[in-house]
Amino acid sequence: MSRSRISRVVVTPVAFGDPPLLNVVGVHQPYALRAIVEVHTDSGLLGLGETYADEAHLGRLDAVAAALPGHDPYDLNGLRRLVTEVLGRETGGASASFGGMLDVSSAVDTVHSPFEVACLDLQGREAGVPVSDLLGGAVRERVPFSGYLFYKWAGHPGHADDAWGEALTPDQVVDQARRMVDGWGFGSLKLKGGVLPPDEECAAIEALRDAFPDLPLRLDPNGAWTVDTSVKVADRLAGVVEYLEDPTPGIEGMAAVSARTDVPLATNMCVIAMEHLPPAIAQGAVQVVLSDHHLWGGLRKSALLGGITEVWGMGLSMHSNSHLGVSLAAMVHLAAATPNLTYACDTHYPWKTEDVIAPDVLSFESGSVAVPTASGLGVELDRDALGALHEQYLGCGVRRREDTAYMRSIRPDFSPHTSRW
Amino acid sequence: MSRSRISRVVVTPVAFGDPPLLNVVGVHQPYALRAIVEVHTDSGLLGLGETYADEAHLGRLDAVAAALPGHDPYDLNGLRRLVTEVLGRETGGASASFGGMLDVSSAVDTVHSPFEVACLDLQGREAGVPVSDLLGGAVRERVPFSGYLFYKWAGHPGHADDAWGEALTPDQVVDQARRMVDGWGFGSLKLKGGVLPPDEECAAIEALRDAFPDLPLRLDPNGAWTVDTSVKVADRLAGVVEYLEDPTPGIEGMAAVSARTDVPLATNMCVIAMEHLPPAIAQGAVQVVLSDHHLWGGLRKSALLGGITEVWGMGLSMHSNSHLGVSLAAMVHLAAATPNLTYACDTHYPWKTEDVIAPDVLSFESGSVAVPTASGLGVELDRDALGALHEQYLGCGVRRREDTAYMRSIRPDFSPHTSRW
Repeated sequence: MSRSRISRVVVTPVAFGDPPLLNVVGVHQPYALRAIVEVHTDSGLLGLGETYADEAHLGRLDAVAAALPGHDPYDLNGLRRLVTEVLGRETGGASASFGGMLDVSSAVDTVHSPFEVACLDLQGREAGVPVSDLLGGAVRERVPFSGYLFYKWAGHPGHADDAWGEALTPDQVVDQARRMVDGWGFGSLKLKGGVLPPDEECAAIEALRDAFPDLPLRLDPNGAWTVDTSVKVADRLAGVVEYLEDPTPGIEGMAAVSARTDVPLATNMCVIAMEHLPPAIAQGAVQVVLSDHHLWGGLRKSALLGGITEVWGMGLSMHSNSHLGVSLAAMVHLAAATPNLTYACDTHYPWKTEDVIAPDVLSFESGSVAVPTASGLGVELDRDALGALHEQYLGCGVRRREDTAYMRSIRPDFSPHTSRW
Repeated sequence: MSRSRISRVVVTPVAFGDPPLLNVVGVHQPYALRAIVEVHTDSGLLGLGETYADEAHLGRLDAVAAALPGHDPYDLNGLRRLVTEVLGRETGGASASFGGMLDVSSAVDTVHSPFEVACLDLQGREAGVPVSDLLGGAVRERVPFSGYLFYKWAGHPGHADDAWGEALTPDQVVDQARRMVDGWGFGSLKLKGGVLPPDEECAAIEALRDAFPDLPLRLDPNGAWTVDTSVKVADRLAGVVEYLEDPTPGIEGMAAVSARTDVPLATNMCVIAMEHLPPAIAQGAVQVVLSDHHLWGGLRKSALLGGITEVWGMGLSMHSNSHLGVSLAAMVHLAAATPNLTYACDTHYPWKTEDVIAPDVLSFESGSVAVPTASGLGVELDRDALGALHEQYLGCGVRRREDTAYMRSIRPDFSPHTSRW
């Protein structure tokens, strides 16, 4: 039979409104950026992917997009080779997508990811099966997510308060959590920390424990603490949190904390690529790894990460950046087909009000999303919405994620240093 | 769209003639056993798998076969769950397939494997793509194999000499190698050792080096040596062999050898399941792992093994037991889609004269087999041949691999102990 080939690839940067969510490196800008990748075949099918959209990343996506026509959507090994060849040595600045939060040494994984997802979407559409089936089959019909709580200002400076309002005190954090739980049904909660002194963040976690006695809780200060502070917080929150995420920076720092506490340590900062697994495992640095198909090079490499964590008896959870529905669909298929992904996944989804996909396929009930059973990812582009968010991208002026620069435009003395407490 | 479901599963034990190949636990019986697994769907498709056929294994295959109708061929995670449930705690004696050579603690992987391969064959046939595409796409058009040399008797006792004749001296081993190289074009050679005192086996390797100065060589005594002997052999064959396979038994033994030589150590004995990887890696026991989809639980778990060896910077090669064409096809697809499988694969294929598949799809040229490009595995059953080899199974009297018992029927004082030298 004749095989379908990629005929056309379109990369569309979009911007969507984002509240002033605080973190260790600063504050979210008024707009978050994403790139929507469309991979069309000569058989008339369309596969979708979604990724970061800072300028350096967009340039790389465009270079790969130009080289893709003629490629076989089943040849994922060839896709990776092609991405590697197109990028060549020009992968510096790959960390730009993360607003200073992560130190990414190669752009290959992040650039490869949306094209790989789109190719799997195409494979599923061609074979008439959901992407979860291409990853080994869904082991659960619904994927649970955790409610993602943030310290935040009432609104972006110079603008009206947003619908969520301020969250800087334990009571305000509990109010935010109640809204998350009431609105989406989340069965676990994660607080993004690294914003206030550790005692205040511990108090917020303890207030959450009092308000939601049965919900698993997580605290993630993005490496804001020293080893000693991390151990003190772990002692205080032992039995209260299901894990502490990145209390301190680096594999060696995490290993030092881990040696002094029984509280499981999770990471999306010191283990963010395959090359970090051997030293992290050898040093016993972490007990839970957060997967993220955008960062780890796609769904199949994320499945490999899942397999590795299972073999080494580590926990597996899932990380989120601000994202839209194409990414949510991919996250749901991946999580559904990963037997040992037993922690609820992170998601920023409730924080956004706009999207590029046709509504109603991915809806939260009891904090979980049903795995789409239609072919491929199971989501369709809403071209009007895509056009509107692209217009918004063109007009909003944001061209990369710059949490620190935006924060300094408001608080000039702000320092983004990790290990600050 | 309506999804096809498994409607009928047939497991057929077959026997094929096997020469008296010698190894550390004894000698190959006159017949080697395999089970051919047919998985039929209600859409009229047939997927194939091949595995061991000792009686304990056949009983487990039949139990899974009876439970499979109604299962979705895409649900590989569910297949594994089903196999685990069907087998329950009754997985003792899982080592019976290996004639005393391997200590297998669970039957789940070996029972799961042929059904998983058959389901991938079905997926490929349904989608119109080769199995290599379902594994990420072929990175090479041909898969190279190594010529597998054995010490052997001239023929089975009581029977006429076989076409290969005796191989017990270095000259006879070189003659056998020449026949392998002339007939199949192999570009590398492996000698199964553990049969004669190490000095004689080293002499055979040195004779091969003299006769074939450019061909990579391997020696595999199946753990026949002590740590000290292993180090002595490694010193003697440094620069002559590309790796030494299982010179001594056990992860700790291999680690002790590895610490005293730069010759890469490979294994198909001390790392034969995922649970062996963490301790083997922590101890630096081996530099090359031999994959084997029959043993490791199928093509996708073998791909996981491939990913793990890549992440930890280990070499990856491929093991073989006596096998027929369905297995060869699966091995070729797996090897083709595994980027870091850069060593030539082992195969017993030249040692057999019978098969169950229609001829001419899998042929050796220059020691390599072209990756089939037809849908699925790309091989078809020859039902006359299958029937004839099943009749041969019924009549031959062999019901399990018993290299040691067969050897003792000829040499009553034979001892199968490893570390004997």
